[in-house]
Amino acid sequence: MDYETPQFFRVMRYAARADRDVVDMVSGNPDWEPPAPLREGLRAYADADPADFQYPPSPGLDALRDEIAARRDVDRSRVVVTNGAGEANHLATTGALDRTEGSEILMTDPVYPYYAGRANLLDADARYVPVDETGQLDPADVRAAASEDTAAVVVNSPNNPTGAVYPPDTVEALVEIAEDYDAVLVADEVYDHFVYDDGFESALAHDSDHVVATNSFSKSLAITGFRVGYAVFPPEDGPLGGMLDRARTRHMLTNVTGSRPAQVAVLRALRDTPPEYFERNRDRLRERIDAFTDALDAAGAEYTTPRGSFYVMARFEDYPGTMDNVERLVDEAGVAGMPGEAFGESRADWLRFALVTPRVGEAAERLADFFA
Amino acid sequence: MDYETPQFFRVMRYAARADRDVVDMVSGNPDWEPPAPLREGLRAYADADPADFQYPPSPGLDALRDEIAARRDVDRSRVVVTNGAGEANHLATTGALDRTEGSEILMTDPVYPYYAGRANLLDADARYVPVDETGQLDPADVRAAASEDTAAVVVNSPNNPTGAVYPPDTVEALVEIAEDYDAVLVADEVYDHFVYDDGFESALAHDSDHVVATNSFSKSLAITGFRVGYAVFPPEDGPLGGMLDRARTRHMLTNVTGSRPAQVAVLRALRDTPPEYFERNRDRLRERIDAFTDALDAAGAEYTTPRGSFYVMARFEDYPGTMDNVERLVDEAGVAGMPGEAFGESRADWLRFALVTPRVGEAAERLADFFA
Repeated sequence: MDYETPQFFRVMRYAARADRDVVDMVSGNPDWEPPAPLREGLRAYADADPADFQYPPSPGLDALRDEIAARRDVDRSRVVVTNGAGEANHLATTGALDRTEGSEILMTDPVYPYYAGRANLLDADARYVPVDETGQLDPADVRAAASEDTAAVVVNSPNNPTGAVYPPDTVEALVEIAEDYDAVLVADEVYDHFVYDDGFESALAHDSDHVVATNSFSKSLAITGFRVGYAVFPPEDGPLGGMLDRARTRHMLTNVTGSRPAQVAVLRALRDTPPEYFERNRDRLRERIDAFTDALDAAGAEYTTPRGSFYVMARFEDYPGTMDNVERLVDEAGVAGMPGEAFGESRADWLRFALVTPRVGEAAERLADFFA
Repeated sequence: MDYETPQFFRVMRYAARADRDVVDMVSGNPDWEPPAPLREGLRAYADADPADFQYPPSPGLDALRDEIAARRDVDRSRVVVTNGAGEANHLATTGALDRTEGSEILMTDPVYPYYAGRANLLDADARYVPVDETGQLDPADVRAAASEDTAAVVVNSPNNPTGAVYPPDTVEALVEIAEDYDAVLVADEVYDHFVYDDGFESALAHDSDHVVATNSFSKSLAITGFRVGYAVFPPEDGPLGGMLDRARTRHMLTNVTGSRPAQVAVLRALRDTPPEYFERNRDRLRERIDAFTDALDAAGAEYTTPRGSFYVMARFEDYPGTMDNVERLVDEAGVAGMPGEAFGESRADWLRFALVTPRVGEAAERLADFFA
């Protein structure tokens, strides 16, 4: 499988060039409004003093790190503000590989393609642990795959593409595996504001020295283009203390620091956005999930109902999740999704649809018509 | 020499905590206004459609790449918009190391510390070629140092910290050396808008397949905190074509893409800023150079008059450029500079002063008093 180049851009380009109206369910770009304070923060920043247009501290604006640290209940020193969760995951993964002789990265199948591509880029040995039909990961399978060569276990919960949310027991077991093998659990939690029941608990809750939690404001504030994320590294005085320092050095020598206008706007949004904003976004997605899965029922498709994130994976009879079939769906049904094969072998028969369009119902009807 | 952690932040923190008024001449942060269209771009963007807040294309907004490509007279496909020149240099250097068996990076002494730190991070063999007293690099010295093991020659002209501008002959000779050894000339030209005579020519002028030119808008638009830079890679159909593709992949897997608010503001600034803006900034710096060097004359210091960039290196009798001496200057003279030793052995006796404060004259008087 070629994970080198994520296929999102290819499908989006194909859909954009199509000769007909297409409902775009490809990317993870929210289609809803960012919170009003985010816009206010940008507007105020446009008139700021020239000094405010210069380098923020390399690990991020102090006030932003304070705000994140308070929310995550960790010491500020552990927080590095990054260029989105992408860089946070990159720092966590490179750091895990640097600190031990181990060269193996354990991931799930299906996998978020950037993790797999990164393993490739870093010449790591990628090993995939299949999840079950509902997207749940059995820690016993992870333990069976783990070895002295395991440098990192990279997981994403709430999960893209399956919509699964790992229960606290699973996360605790993953933490223990990381500890037992002196590996790092990289817990990417970017969809933590999109959980539709009470089942989510951050990996940070386990207070382990072997966890790096990564996150971003791309999804929760509907600003994937701003590139503000963060990683929470193990404390400096613990057994994995050196990771933080190396990550800060790598961040400095790769990016110097993250973009300040975006950090300023995010800080304002974090301070002034009421909880109702996030609740409203979840309600909107609940409605979309219902509308889409109802129509999938009507179309006779198999699917997983997401408990978190904003993707639905569906399987249609005799229509495997290949790039060719995705392109045919664009041309003949006017719906653009992602091929399941882009996420791994176990979902090669499936398609992924992102619920980031108000036209979810229309898309579902088109699919029902096409597969009728 | 420990280049791992650039010392800028340490000196700035020390100066900020000082018990007295300190003129800050440490960092390369412009203290002047960004162009008005930059602020207008930000203001307009604050009211943009939610879709405009989502991922730009990974290599940058099309219109921004078009604007850069037109200015540099290259095909747009060769331009990757990066998170500042930092990431541009990182992509260029990692790309040079990846493409050959060679593991050596040739740099100058004095060197911009991030280049040296990056060589460290990447486990490359760093080799330094001393420049002369005026900061000029003799290509014969570079050729003598080059070998089959040379993967990259990394230079910065106009130069930080020396203020030297390499004449076209030098750049041409460096290009030839890169070609002869199948290496990459990484030409960091971030100070190209700060040249005080007619002596500058971009390395791109030589139209070689062995050049990666890097740049940013941090200095020219007075926005070091925005993190918008770019690299121009060799054409895809040439002998080093693979570099571009690998750099795009690395960029995608590290950062996904750069921050969009900053890209939008830069694009507006590029389109609407009149040439007078840049001329005014050069004039201001010419005045500061005169004021500062006059006072250095009065203080009996040796110094180099910058022909480009905005730094002055000075040497005071019996006062080597150590961190201790820099801290003493903060406490006793109220002037914060950078220790020459942070840039390499050849400038261990020197101090670097950045002319990014309206209080250049006052700082110079304080130095004259202190050294009197």
